[in-house]
Formats: sequence, C-alpha cells, structure tokens
Amino acid sequence: MFSKVLKTYTGRANGFYRNLSQKLPEFTKNVFDVSRGNYNYINDGHIDYFRRVLGTNRVITNPEDAEKYNVDWFSQVRVCPQGGNTGVNGGSIPVFDEVIISTELMNEIISLDEDSGVLVCQAGCILETIDNKAATKDLIVPLDLGAKGSCQIGGNVSTNAGGLRLLRFGNLHGNILGLEVVKADGEILDCLGTLKKDNTGYHLKHLFIGSEGTLGFVTKVSIQCPSRPKYINVAFLGLQNFNKALKTLKLLRYRLGEILSAIEMIDYCSMDFIKNVVGQQSPIGDYPFYLLIETSGSNALHNEEKLNSFLEESLQKALVLNGTVANEPNKVQDIWSIRENIPNGFQKVASKMLYYDVSVPLAHYYTIVDDVADYAKDISERVFGFGHIGDGNLHLHIQLKNDLTKEVKSNFDSFILEKIVRYKGSISAEHGVGFTKAKLMDKIKPPSTLKVMKDLKKLMDPNGILNPYKIFI
Amino acid sequence: MFSKVLKTYTGRANGFYRNLSQKLPEFTKNVFDVSRGNYNYINDGHIDYFRRVLGTNRVITNPEDAEKYNVDWFSQVRVCPQGGNTGVNGGSIPVFDEVIISTELMNEIISLDEDSGVLVCQAGCILETIDNKAATKDLIVPLDLGAKGSCQIGGNVSTNAGGLRLLRFGNLHGNILGLEVVKADGEILDCLGTLKKDNTGYHLKHLFIGSEGTLGFVTKVSIQCPSRPKYINVAFLGLQNFNKALKTLKLLRYRLGEILSAIEMIDYCSMDFIKNVVGQQSPIGDYPFYLLIETSGSNALHNEEKLNSFLEESLQKALVLNGTVANEPNKVQDIWSIRENIPNGFQKVASKMLYYDVSVPLAHYYTIVDDVADYAKDISERVFGFGHIGDGNLHLHIQLKNDLTKEVKSNFDSFILEKIVRYKGSISAEHGVGFTKAKLMDKIKPPSTLKVMKDLKKLMDPNGILNPYKIFI
Repeated sequence: MFSKVLKTYTGRANGFYRNLSQKLPEFTKNVFDVSRGNYNYINDGHIDYFRRVLGTNRVITNPEDAEKYNVDWFSQVRVCPQGGNTGVNGGSIPVFDEVIISTELMNEIISLDEDSGVLVCQAGCILETIDNKAATKDLIVPLDLGAKGSCQIGGNVSTNAGGLRLLRFGNLHGNILGLEVVKADGEILDCLGTLKKDNTGYHLKHLFIGSEGTLGFVTKVSIQCPSRPKYINVAFLGLQNFNKALKTLKLLRYRLGEILSAIEMIDYCSMDFIKNVVGQQSPIGDYPFYLLIETSGSNALHNEEKLNSFLEESLQKALVLNGTVANEPNKVQDIWSIRENIPNGFQKVASKMLYYDVSVPLAHYYTIVDDVADYAKDISERVFGFGHIGDGNLHLHIQLKNDLTKEVKSNFDSFILEKIVRYKGSISAEHGVGFTKAKLMDKIKPPSTLKVMKDLKKLMDPNGILNPYKIFI
Repeated sequence: MFSKVLKTYTGRANGFYRNLSQKLPEFTKNVFDVSRGNYNYINDGHIDYFRRVLGTNRVITNPEDAEKYNVDWFSQVRVCPQGGNTGVNGGSIPVFDEVIISTELMNEIISLDEDSGVLVCQAGCILETIDNKAATKDLIVPLDLGAKGSCQIGGNVSTNAGGLRLLRFGNLHGNILGLEVVKADGEILDCLGTLKKDNTGYHLKHLFIGSEGTLGFVTKVSIQCPSRPKYINVAFLGLQNFNKALKTLKLLRYRLGEILSAIEMIDYCSMDFIKNVVGQQSPIGDYPFYLLIETSGSNALHNEEKLNSFLEESLQKALVLNGTVANEPNKVQDIWSIRENIPNGFQKVASKMLYYDVSVPLAHYYTIVDDVADYAKDISERVFGFGHIGDGNLHLHIQLKNDLTKEVKSNFDSFILEKIVRYKGSISAEHGVGFTKAKLMDKIKPPSTLKVMKDLKKLMDPNGILNPYKIFI
C-alpha cells in the first residue's frame, strides 16, 4: 500500500561538535553519555525480511548510501527514523544502530477538496509541494517554515512545527483534521478524518502531533487549508529599543488585526552578522532592533490602507524610527530573505555556534538575550536574538570564540534552563525535544506530568521500539 | 484551594421522553437498557468525609435542592457530574447514583495578560463572564455558543465545544494553551501553560479536550484570546435552493476571506417554525433557504466595502435573491436572534422532538435533511435543517406527530447512522457522545481505534470512576 523506504543504520553517529578536519561528524554515542537499550542487533535474517516485504531496492545497508539519512541539517546528531531530516534537536536521526524508516517515497497527494479546503496526503509529501497544490485552488497550507522545500508534512506533524505564520493560522493541533498512524505493534490506526467538527470519542490524533514519532508512525495526514490570501504586504521597520518593539506589537494587533500574518524580530547583532557573513544589508540602515511585518488579505487597497495607517501612527508616536514597505512579490521576497538568511548564515560558523529555540513571555523576551550576552561575554563573539516575536518564540544563538566543547554547552544549557524556568518560558518552543533536550525533561516537568507521559509511552509502545532515546532518557 | 461543591445524587434520573402530566422526567435507568456498574453505594461515612473536606454547605443531599443538577437543559437524561449542565447528550448528568461534583463555585478569573492575550481561570467560570472580562482589554474569548450565559469553560473544554465562530477562530484544540486537571487518583496534573508555543514532550492537555470528563476533571483553563474585532456586520440572505447556498459559500470565502466570522444556514421549515411558534418573522420575506453571514474586522469602512462588493456580485450572479444588512449592535442582535430562537422554539415541543447534531461533507449537507424528511413523512410534522454550514455542521431536528417513543427513536438513530456513515460524516459534530450516543461508538469507530480509546480510559481511570456510562457502554 505505502511506498516505504527502509534503511539500516550504518553504525556511526555524530556529536554536537565535530572536528572540521574530519569529513564525517563524531558518533553521537561517543559524545553523549547514553547507553544502548536492550534491543536485538540487526542480522541478515532481518534484512532479508525487510527486502521480502518492501522489495530489494527499498532497503539500504551500504554505509555511503545511508550517509545522508544519518546526518541531520545541523550535523548535530546522526540518524534518521523518518521525514525530511530537517529537525534540529536530533529527533529524526538514530543514536545507536536503529533502523531508519524514511517516508521520502510516501509522497502522494491523495485528495484536495476545493469546497471544504481539505487536503489529504501521505506523510512524505514535502511541505512546499502540498502548498503549491493548494495554491492551484486558491487555498494555502496553514504552515510555513524556512525548511519548506525539504521538510515533510509527517515530520511537521510529529514535531508540531510552528513556523512563520502560526500567528495567523494557529497551530497544527487546530489545523490537522486527521491522521493515519502505524502503531508500535504494526496495527494501522485510522484517524484520517476530514471533518472540521467531529466530537465522537477521544481525539486520538493529538497524541501523535508533537510526540516526535515516539507514540506512533504518522503515515497519512489530513489538513484544513484556508483561503489563500491574495495580496501580501511586508514592512521592515527600524526601532530604537525593545520596549518600543513591545508597544509596536500592541499597535499592530489593534490596527492590523485580521490581516496580520507574521511579526518577526531581528536584533542588531543578527542584522550585522548577515551583513558581514552573507553580504546582505538592511534596506533602511542600522537600528538597534528591526521588525518584519507581513499582512495578507483579500483586498489590496484595504491592506495598504490599514498598513499605512499603522505606519503613520507608529512614526508619529515615535515607536518606529524608519521603515520600508513592499507589495511586489520580488520585493516581498527580498525582505523575507533577510530573515531567512540569518539561520543560513549561521551554518557557516556551525562549529562555534550554540542555539536555543525558546518561548519567553514578552516582558522577558529580550531580557534573556541580555542575560546570556552578559554571562557569555568572555567566551563569545556575539549573542543573537531573533524570531517569531508575535508568538513569543525567540531563537537565541551564541557564537563562541572557540569551537564548542561539551563543558561549555553544558554550562550554557544550565544557565538558560534556569532563566527560562524563572521567566516561565519553554526550553523548546517549536523544535521539539528530540535527543539533545531529552535530559532536561525531568528538570522542566513536574513528576506527575512526566509520569503520565511515560505511562502513555508504555501504553502505545510497550517495548520502546519507536524512536528510542528521544524525549525521555 | 478550590471552591468545589459536591452533591450526592437523589437517586432519580429521567429518560429522553417524559409524561408531560408528571412534573419530573422518567428515570434514565428505567428508560435505557443500561446496568449499574459494580461501584460502592454512598453511605453516611462518605457524606461525612465530603463534609469534613469541603465544609457542610458544600454537600447537597436533599433531593429538592439537587434537582437542578439532575435534569439537563433538554430534560433528557438526569444527573450532573460537572459544569453548567448545558450539554444535550446527557454527558453532564449521572445515570445511576453517581456523586455530582459541580464546578459552579470555581468561578475565579485568575489572570488576564493584556500583552499576550492569555486568560487563565477556574473551570466553573461562565463563558460570557470571561468574554466580558476579555472585552475590557479589547480581547475576545475565541468561543461563542447560544448557551454562553450559563455554560462553563471547563465544560466547554471537556466537550470540545464548537459554536458560532469556530469558522473564524478555530477549535479549542488550537486555542486552549493549558489545563489543570485532577486525575482519577486525585493527583493534580499541572499542564496550565500560558505559552503559544511549547514543544516539550507530549501535549497532554489534548487528552482532556473533548473527552467529556472521562479521563480527568478539568479544574483550570488557560486560553488564548485574540484581538476583539471592533466592527461587526451581519447580512441575512434569501436563496432559491441549496445549490446556490454552496456557490455562495465559495464566493464568501473568496471575497470576504479574513473578515468572515460566521456562516449559518436556516431552511424554510426552521424559519416558518419560529414565525409560528416564537412569532418572529423573516426580515426579507419567505425563501427556501437563508444564510446568516457575519463579518468582523478592525476597519468599519473596509468591512462594509467588502460585504457590499460580495452582495453586489452575489445578486448579479443570481446566487442570492434578497438580503438585508446591519451594523448597529441592536440590529445585529435582532438578526442573530432569528438563529438563536430556533433551538429555543424547539423547547416548546420537546416531547415530540428528535434532534441530531451531525457533520456532513458539503456535497451531502442538505441531502440528509431530504433523506430524513422522506423517511419520516408519515410520522413527522416537519423536519428542520439549520446550523454552522461554514464548518459543515448541521443541526437536524424532527418534529413528530406524536410523543417520542423508544422504538421511533431507535429507528431514526439507525437510519441517520447509516446515512452519516455513507456520506462520511460524523454523528456528533460538536455536542459530544455523552450517554445517549455511547451505544453508537462501536458502529462508527474501527475496532483498532476503539481499543486505543479504551486503553486510554483504563490508563487514566483504571477503576472507571470518572463520568461512568459516558462515551463507552
């Protein structure tokens, strides 16, 4: 029925740091203090079975061929149980010798209903592909990420991906109508509903949204696509300080309300970094803070009037010092590319970079960047703060003077954890727990909550065979 | 800590039909074929314990005082485990001699953060009360029901209530940020997060949204409140047939997009019924179908321009035959009162009324009303179809010539179930399963799905003490 690929792991995994003179990253199991579970080792009998069930060309055992599934985007950990392998907390890659089941051939769009806006597809469909399909019917997939060209919807669902337009369309728990899931015992769980309202019994699909493949393997997805906004405007604004950014947020919600589709914050360091590393300048000169605003709606004139009225008021109230607006697709894309180039640029100094994806209540949204900059002043080049401020989601990156070591990472983890707990934030806003944050779970969750999570894991996967070493250690 | 009320059940329950010459409805246990579980009977020792823990005035055992908790809004079944008791499938009332824990004194609004729009409150807060609180900060609670003046947010969450503006704000799975829940073993589960993005482990709160109090007792709720739309417009339109209504829906989404906040359908029979029974006339004369459209947004002029442009086009394309619009609050309320008076009017003929709350894909949304009218032609006065067509949610009511009997109900249940299964709809769109639909669960869910649901129930409530006889029988 499904076009599945199954690969066996090569037996090597990498660590969060790497020796740049080596071509391959270090083994995960060597870098992190983790013990292999009491699982069977893969033998020729298993391989033969997989080949019989899936076909010879669907099983990869050659180490070179398996390489791209074993190293994730950040080259941080090194194995792949599923999806587009665009995760950044090691949730999609194995730790020891786990078998990788890739969804990449499960890429069929099953249906798109124009009247209801419901799109049903296999888990391996690339996000951009299904959004392009939705666009043919004036619909939009209500999720948009930097990785949209390679991430897969099954992985998005399993990570509860957030992204750029959560502000407008809400989260996946609200937009996913149904899932087909393969349980640990191989049984297919058909929750692939296509109705917006269905209150018949427990809403099982939510178990699998954000549980990172540890409770079940998502194979099909049904998603509600709203009308595609016809007209997009963006504004790129320069501000004097973070306090003005907060006040601007309030004015934005008040004046732009229903047409607001994204509010991104970029700090001076982030902008300066891409100027120097990527060669992209701010279109309005240098300011301590920038906001990138996107509006989208069904009437071009109305959108512009609202945006202009907001801009006039924000300049008049001295909330905003300078700004530029765009509505032509090329210019809109130019402005968005500033934001997108930040994580791309960081790739160039990956071995010296530490990153955190946190949620912080707005009052402390930038305080924590200052805290970290102060804490890190002797060993860091720069500390960067940027992200989806409209949803309280901050991406916090630290560029070190030297290559990252285990000890330095551990110290920063502890420092940031302590601040996040104090500010009542979250240590993972949208990237999930994966492997790298699993050890923090017992520091951030009350025992009663952790117990229910572990009970659920035991119920759904009694032998612990689904994505082991992830979420819990 | 919490102001709880605990009452013992009087020992009487009613059925879905009743003898109008009697003051009290019939016992549930006598009407339905259901056996009492192997639970302890309440004795004086229990009552003393409750009094000691909660205080003497928090325990009600006098039958007269307990009456209002034992009969629900439709006088259909007869006991109350929690909430505002506005449910219509018997989910909120006991079947045998269950103890009722009412949330009505847990009515404290704990916090409202203006910047983030997060409202945190106890479960017994009345929906309208928290919405009024949100309004003081230009925010809106993203849920609106006919019962908003008496339903409680804890009950709304437990039923996954849908209501009038789901079209605009999405469902509770998307809008509830956190819950505090008391487990069956008395342990408090603190998932009362206030962050829009928090991907740290399993998203436990979703277990309790829509599980009707059978997995845990919701005691506190944290909800994301968006900006309150400043300007509301409504249009009341007359149409020639259902096919034109479908085409109008498409044009509505295309032209009104982001400002659409509700689309309700009313058929001729429903309108005619409230003319005769409630004395309220259609403001535009008689038509086979009516649509009530609500738009809401941040700029009055823009809203009106969009709505007028839609109306011109819909008249020009002969989709709509006639219509009236309103923007003054009183007139807006007058038009909404047409829709709200339909279920209110039905109360007057409750003993002869059968009702279904179903989801149906749009292509068959009204086909099922015709199917039922045809099936029921000899024994019914009228068949009514109305509801949240923008979300595919139909309220289907049948007024019989005679008082409802068990046999007639059973026949209709089977007929509608068969149609709903064929049209790939849902037998409960927003009202839940409760007691009255529990027997249908094994007819609509695959065994694998039912098994996971029952496994979850056993995990969270091993002794089956939370809202027994509900969802599963």
